[in-house]
Amino acid sequence: MKKLPLFFIFFVYILNAQKTLDRVEPPFWWHNMHNPELQILLYGKDIATKNIELSDGVKIEKLTKVENPNYVFLTLNTAEIKSADFNINVLDGKKNIATYNYELKNRKPNSAERKSYTSSDVIYLIMPDRFANGNPSNDSQPDLIEKANRNLPSGRHGGDLQGVIDHLDYLKNLGVTAVWLTPVNQDNEKQTTYHGYAQTDLYKIDGRYGTNEDYKKLSADLKSKNMKLIQDVVTNHWGISDWLIQDLPSKDWIHHFADGEGKDGFKRSNYRTSTQTDTNASEIDKKLALDGWFDNSMPDLNQSNPLVLNYLTQNAIWWIEYADLDGLRVDTYPYNDKEAMAKWAKSITDEYPNFNIVGETWVYTPATISFWQKDSKVAAIENYNSNLPSVMDFTLFSAMPAAFKEKESWDQGMIKLYNSFANDFLFPDVNNMLVFFENHDTMRWNEIFDGDIRYYKMGLSLIMTVRGIPEIYYGSEIGMRGNKDKLGDADIRRDFPGGWKSDSQNAFNLKTQTPTQKEYYDYTSKLLNWRKNKNVIHTGKTKHYVPENNVYVYFRYNEKESVMVVINNDEKDQTLKLNRFAESLQNYSHAKDVISEQHFDLNKDLKIPAKSSLILELK
Amino acid sequence: MKKLPLFFIFFVYILNAQKTLDRVEPPFWWHNMHNPELQILLYGKDIATKNIELSDGVKIEKLTKVENPNYVFLTLNTAEIKSADFNINVLDGKKNIATYNYELKNRKPNSAERKSYTSSDVIYLIMPDRFANGNPSNDSQPDLIEKANRNLPSGRHGGDLQGVIDHLDYLKNLGVTAVWLTPVNQDNEKQTTYHGYAQTDLYKIDGRYGTNEDYKKLSADLKSKNMKLIQDVVTNHWGISDWLIQDLPSKDWIHHFADGEGKDGFKRSNYRTSTQTDTNASEIDKKLALDGWFDNSMPDLNQSNPLVLNYLTQNAIWWIEYADLDGLRVDTYPYNDKEAMAKWAKSITDEYPNFNIVGETWVYTPATISFWQKDSKVAAIENYNSNLPSVMDFTLFSAMPAAFKEKESWDQGMIKLYNSFANDFLFPDVNNMLVFFENHDTMRWNEIFDGDIRYYKMGLSLIMTVRGIPEIYYGSEIGMRGNKDKLGDADIRRDFPGGWKSDSQNAFNLKTQTPTQKEYYDYTSKLLNWRKNKNVIHTGKTKHYVPENNVYVYFRYNEKESVMVVINNDEKDQTLKLNRFAESLQNYSHAKDVISEQHFDLNKDLKIPAKSSLILELK
Repeated sequence: MKKLPLFFIFFVYILNAQKTLDRVEPPFWWHNMHNPELQILLYGKDIATKNIELSDGVKIEKLTKVENPNYVFLTLNTAEIKSADFNINVLDGKKNIATYNYELKNRKPNSAERKSYTSSDVIYLIMPDRFANGNPSNDSQPDLIEKANRNLPSGRHGGDLQGVIDHLDYLKNLGVTAVWLTPVNQDNEKQTTYHGYAQTDLYKIDGRYGTNEDYKKLSADLKSKNMKLIQDVVTNHWGISDWLIQDLPSKDWIHHFADGEGKDGFKRSNYRTSTQTDTNASEIDKKLALDGWFDNSMPDLNQSNPLVLNYLTQNAIWWIEYADLDGLRVDTYPYNDKEAMAKWAKSITDEYPNFNIVGETWVYTPATISFWQKDSKVAAIENYNSNLPSVMDFTLFSAMPAAFKEKESWDQGMIKLYNSFANDFLFPDVNNMLVFFENHDTMRWNEIFDGDIRYYKMGLSLIMTVRGIPEIYYGSEIGMRGNKDKLGDADIRRDFPGGWKSDSQNAFNLKTQTPTQKEYYDYTSKLLNWRKNKNVIHTGKTKHYVPENNVYVYFRYNEKESVMVVINNDEKDQTLKLNRFAESLQNYSHAKDVISEQHFDLNKDLKIPAKSSLILELK
Repeated sequence: MKKLPLFFIFFVYILNAQKTLDRVEPPFWWHNMHNPELQILLYGKDIATKNIELSDGVKIEKLTKVENPNYVFLTLNTAEIKSADFNINVLDGKKNIATYNYELKNRKPNSAERKSYTSSDVIYLIMPDRFANGNPSNDSQPDLIEKANRNLPSGRHGGDLQGVIDHLDYLKNLGVTAVWLTPVNQDNEKQTTYHGYAQTDLYKIDGRYGTNEDYKKLSADLKSKNMKLIQDVVTNHWGISDWLIQDLPSKDWIHHFADGEGKDGFKRSNYRTSTQTDTNASEIDKKLALDGWFDNSMPDLNQSNPLVLNYLTQNAIWWIEYADLDGLRVDTYPYNDKEAMAKWAKSITDEYPNFNIVGETWVYTPATISFWQKDSKVAAIENYNSNLPSVMDFTLFSAMPAAFKEKESWDQGMIKLYNSFANDFLFPDVNNMLVFFENHDTMRWNEIFDGDIRYYKMGLSLIMTVRGIPEIYYGSEIGMRGNKDKLGDADIRRDFPGGWKSDSQNAFNLKTQTPTQKEYYDYTSKLLNWRKNKNVIHTGKTKHYVPENNVYVYFRYNEKESVMVVINNDEKDQTLKLNRFAESLQNYSHAKDVISEQHFDLNKDLKIPAKSSLILELK
């Protein structure tokens, strides 16, 4: 949408904030959290001019007012609150003009010790609007501007949480163990809301996806099938129609540029997040990278404002606790204030010590990716510690298309895969990196290789057997394609065939998959299901060999077992003399390919067909 | 040359080692070294079967014998030797059959505290065979196989030390402050000896370059003109005709491969030096990278053999002390045993605490280049410390041609320069890196840009003003070209015009330079001479700005002064609004370009012509 001039935003609250107590956030909380401090936002017309009293003897530790009189922030010590609820009373003089019953729930047992996703998982990334429409009755909502229109490539297509719930068996059978949904909180912009990255209500599932309860059900249903739910969190920006943006608590809740478009207007980020780590960077470039808006509909949040940071922190914790989440993914990670985000990640992992959070660390060198991982010795050079457990391996992602496309040379072809793993020593926890060849922002892998399934098999073999947590993107497992460069984002976010009742073909149903879809699916399912219990893949060490003749060979190994992966990207069949790999093969005499179940005698040369991979369990 | 089968090498010593005491190395030493221990190699027929006695009461702390009876190694404690010399007597029974008078000289005053090259220097790299023939009478030598033949592109052309000595005023006027010669020790292979990297006598200047005394004179003459001499050291390999290789002290003096060519034959390195830092690397790849031969005429030294390491260490110290050197450059650094080389560098810098040594760290990421620099926090991840003070900025080198050639885009063009400096935080001493756009192994810069001097001026502006120690390659300052890719190394190592009496044109003489040569030279000379006393360039901080419109802007600054560098690689003239650079310009109102001496008002927009650079001293 077009930018709303901020002077307009500043005055519009007079129209919007009609009630005395419009919003209370978080809407409820829990007893016995690690951090007993709770900050409650109260929003209502001129509420800062009113008196606030709490029932049941609950004490307000601190009451914070801000520029905008429609807000007050109450700080409470929940450790001192014994009751299950109390009333927040708003008084005009002595007259009680509004009451909110604030609940402190009991946590589910062992909530703090919850497990999270790890390298034993395979993450399946879904754009819920494009996956399956389980509940056509919620496709459009009276209170939400954009209505369903499946004819618009960038419109709302009606996919929803029920659509995901309906296909959990499909995912389970595929071998997926964790689901990452692009954001499902309300995104009530005028258009292009299907991606969800311009959130407008941080405590509410978008009605076109379902309800908060549906989300909780999805989480529970996933758990019942031994799968995990990962929430996509956006701390960097909200949608410009977010209610807090529309009536800013204070001007410094978001970033403004004096020389931006219009008075106090927006300025687009330069997207140069190297400024976060580069000690030579100019302040103006760094400010534009971090404080510039990701898009004109996405005001950039000021995480260095403690109220903003606390809002973001509590919101994340609220969803973890409410929806029983298994992990987070954080959007546009290096665009955030890094000191604030280090506190954010610490707050969450202090609450949930085993909890995993992966940042979208889309930066360009292994050293700068490492910078963003917790306890990085690279970041320690600048006395920084992100506290962020997991990062994304954009080095591998960037290398993969070229590696498989290029003719082999000194620095082209398979050597790019080898080189991608040559800097693993830089990472404090190399197993806790997402490995992927595509996501919702990139060209689809099957498009890059023009639907040649041989490349899908090789690429998938790779990401399923290297160190880290593999992430796959919905639909590629049935051969879906999409060309971001030619047709834009909508093309890489097409509807999953069969997700809509009117669809002429249903790829969710294994019986109605086309032969091509089936070939993709079967390969994926076999590999993912094999991976599930392979500790040696989850946590084994890696030993790799300089590619020769366009063949990349590596081993994952631990004290108990060993897997040999051979990727032949050459146009010709290849024969490998195995004595080169003696240091990895010395305890083994034969091998079984995970996919074909073919047996190999390790005392003989190993033959591998052109453009194929072998994943060999050593015996 | 073709490989000599090693079984031949092993037996040929019987023919070669005729005398009882053929060689004593080091041939002499000095009193009052930091490390009092001296190990003297004695070489003579069956010397290990003889008795060794020293005169003047000098004690042999340890006598080491090796596989080959033609060697013994004496370890002495020089701190206990008071005399200026003593005799080494070889006795057969009681009969003295050979004597060598071993001298312990006095060091020059403050030898240990000698200064070295720093970021205040500009290094000029010379291939002595191709620079100037100062002494045509030494072009061929009776005892050296390859004779002069200027018609052979890869032959010996007759350039020599006297040729360098003859042109010191040229270099001085150019603004050069340090000279790095490719190796000048004897290289007595059959052919392609002009580059000197297959040394055959580590204590002797190649007769075709001159004598040890000539080398000492070059050093002294340089010093008298306030210039420095940097010796090129090759620790990784020697020439196959080296006398020690021809009669190996022990088989493990060099690396052999059981599966190499022929019995105990050579195997070529895979050149994958990432195996030195990559914790996933296989042993076989790492062994081949480090122990494989750099070329079939270059047996790979085993630095992990303490006798080899000590030989290399003493040899380097001997040349520093003998020729009064100002620094070292070490060839093929990451191909050496890294633990041994850390000791080597420590030994030398323990002797000379201010001494600079730069390794040819031709690796591919800033993190792995940093790995090789002393006190690197990247190397500390693997508990390694190279002790090597200086590394080469191959990141910048790799980026430069593309940066200037490419059309600007998100990740192409000037942004590649910006990105090159974005990882400076990884380096423990960013000022102690060589910065360069070419050397004796690369395409010449003027060739890449087809003789377009605008690119030379921009490229030179860059390397002369960024952090680090600039290195320039002989001849480029007069526009010399050379295409390695088409015509091989010889083409990038052409003779400097005017270095030979018969040359039709002399570019050393400023009066006989062609107009084109003069334009190159004058630009270079003006810039280098300006740089000489610019502390802000030598040690100032850097602040750079994301390139816009193909213009890269950065500042070098300290508390006293500031220099603004503007490189416009666009095909159009550009006008810069200077308010973007306010944080760097706030204390300044006008500026003077170092080359044109043109003045600029910093309150106005800055205009810069297409394909040009400005180096602005701020006032």
